[in-house]
Amino acid sequence: MNQHLSVNDVRHLIRGLLKGDRRCLARLISLVEDVSPYIRTVFRDIAASTGEAYCIGITGPPGSGKSTLINGLTALCRIRGLSVGIISVDPTSPFSGGALLGDRIRMEAHFLDSEVFMRSMGDRGCVGGLPQVISPVMRLMDASGKKVILLETVGVGQSDLRIQDVVDTTVVVVTPESGDVVQTMKAGLMEIGDIFVVNKADRPGALQHAAELKASLDITISRDGWSPRVMTAIAEEGNGIEELDKILTERREFLQSTSELDKKRGERRKKEFIRTIQAEMNKKLSNAIFQKGFLAETLQSVESGDTDPLFGALALCASNTLFSLIDVK
Amino acid sequence: MNQHLSVNDVRHLIRGLLKGDRRCLARLISLVEDVSPYIRTVFRDIAASTGEAYCIGITGPPGSGKSTLINGLTALCRIRGLSVGIISVDPTSPFSGGALLGDRIRMEAHFLDSEVFMRSMGDRGCVGGLPQVISPVMRLMDASGKKVILLETVGVGQSDLRIQDVVDTTVVVVTPESGDVVQTMKAGLMEIGDIFVVNKADRPGALQHAAELKASLDITISRDGWSPRVMTAIAEEGNGIEELDKILTERREFLQSTSELDKKRGERRKKEFIRTIQAEMNKKLSNAIFQKGFLAETLQSVESGDTDPLFGALALCASNTLFSLIDVK
Repeated sequence: MNQHLSVNDVRHLIRGLLKGDRRCLARLISLVEDVSPYIRTVFRDIAASTGEAYCIGITGPPGSGKSTLINGLTALCRIRGLSVGIISVDPTSPFSGGALLGDRIRMEAHFLDSEVFMRSMGDRGCVGGLPQVISPVMRLMDASGKKVILLETVGVGQSDLRIQDVVDTTVVVVTPESGDVVQTMKAGLMEIGDIFVVNKADRPGALQHAAELKASLDITISRDGWSPRVMTAIAEEGNGIEELDKILTERREFLQSTSELDKKRGERRKKEFIRTIQAEMNKKLSNAIFQKGFLAETLQSVESGDTDPLFGALALCASNTLFSLIDVK
Repeated sequence: MNQHLSVNDVRHLIRGLLKGDRRCLARLISLVEDVSPYIRTVFRDIAASTGEAYCIGITGPPGSGKSTLINGLTALCRIRGLSVGIISVDPTSPFSGGALLGDRIRMEAHFLDSEVFMRSMGDRGCVGGLPQVISPVMRLMDASGKKVILLETVGVGQSDLRIQDVVDTTVVVVTPESGDVVQTMKAGLMEIGDIFVVNKADRPGALQHAAELKASLDITISRDGWSPRVMTAIAEEGNGIEELDKILTERREFLQSTSELDKKRGERRKKEFIRTIQAEMNKKLSNAIFQKGFLAETLQSVESGDTDPLFGALALCASNTLFSLIDVK
């Protein structure tokens, strides 16, 4: 359907988005995912309307209760009249892999709420573990008036998920069962968390787990001047949601008062800018290399073994002709 | 020291390499790692002298006995008078992370053998989990007369190690303790192995593990016409080394008789060619973006929030000026 969009249709979608129309938001997200040629116009026109949303990342092992916490935070936001966007990135499942049926049913209350917008994303087109479209999609939600955007990812061992690179605050959720502090460290979660929630705190070992986390965070240098917090919760019973919300607000106030927020967001924008240019250059290269011409001939000579691949590539890049070869219209 | 090399020094190194001089090999590997401007010449001049070596990848979880198997295979090759190259890629340790002291001492016999060349590499500059210099370093070893090149990597869960992309044959080593078949599958090892070795077969569960591997491989479509093999070994006692060697030879004969070898290597060269061009373009972009000029101004405007990062990047890439901006000499 998107193929048949006219410039006017897109303008209409943008106007709708800025008024908070959820169907326009959904259509525009699809445009981004489909790499529509209209993307450029869209992001030029919404730029001035972004920057309001508080972007929060929630990560942790499967089954730690991320969805339940998100559910609780969403309910709190709604009581205050705040519009909420939720993005779930899960390589394995259509919406949220770890969510039990109960979570889903409870989430359905929000499904019917026009001020809560949910989107799940696979890990297609990942760069460093997160889909490249995450940041643009968050900006669309921001422009549509979402005041809080919750990004849920699965954080399990050795992956290079870069959730901390796309949000203002990262919440790491663990359970007493999800292994000791050493395992949390191994999974690379200690370095990225601004807030740690030991969930399912009615289970044995929760307080000790929290104490251990705290102790090992205390000897870590605080990042950006913020000392990571540790708290316990029983999200299933609504226990801890308000405390988490309070710490999230403190964290936001800290970021704003120290201008860390601007710094973080500036860095984030720069990275996205450079990443996008790199992706576009690679696209141009892929297009050019399989066309007729010198580049394709070199590729063939490399494939057959007549030209060494490293020599061939370096010679081409040093020859001043690379870009004119790639820049085929 | 490499900075002060002259063209004649490099020619001397290349001549030495082609005669099998190990010190020349070591110096040239350092040139590649240091991204010397002489690399281009080196790889132009050695191109005709490569393609002889049989490249074997050995991967598996830490402690599965990869080093011991490599040690055994190396001894076998030496008995036959074949020169051997060994590369160990381990993000965590200077030589081989999992190797026990005993392995190291046994390896030392080979350290003194001038026909065995070992090199360990960190994971600096990784693309898809393997250092980009792996393939060029393997070609240098090949050109220096190594008939067998053994590449050891640690294969543990969810990583995107691409060992199968740089070798002719991939050996996956597991132990009865290293988890069941499901875990091997989860780690992505089932898809990449041409040969599976269940090592430490004197421990309980080995035969069952091997049988399960076999059963689940049997229902997989054979890749490239080769049906993956499963064998047991007690590498520590030298048990299974000869069988592994025999299967490795069968696999090589299969690759040669079906022209799969040429196809695989052609694909490998193409990928290296494209990857190198991409890396060079990214280098040019990084250089240009932090210099004065339009690109740097755009970056600043993106950082400050005046220009949307996605809009800025796409506008630049569509403007026909990108490459002239990047291609600063």
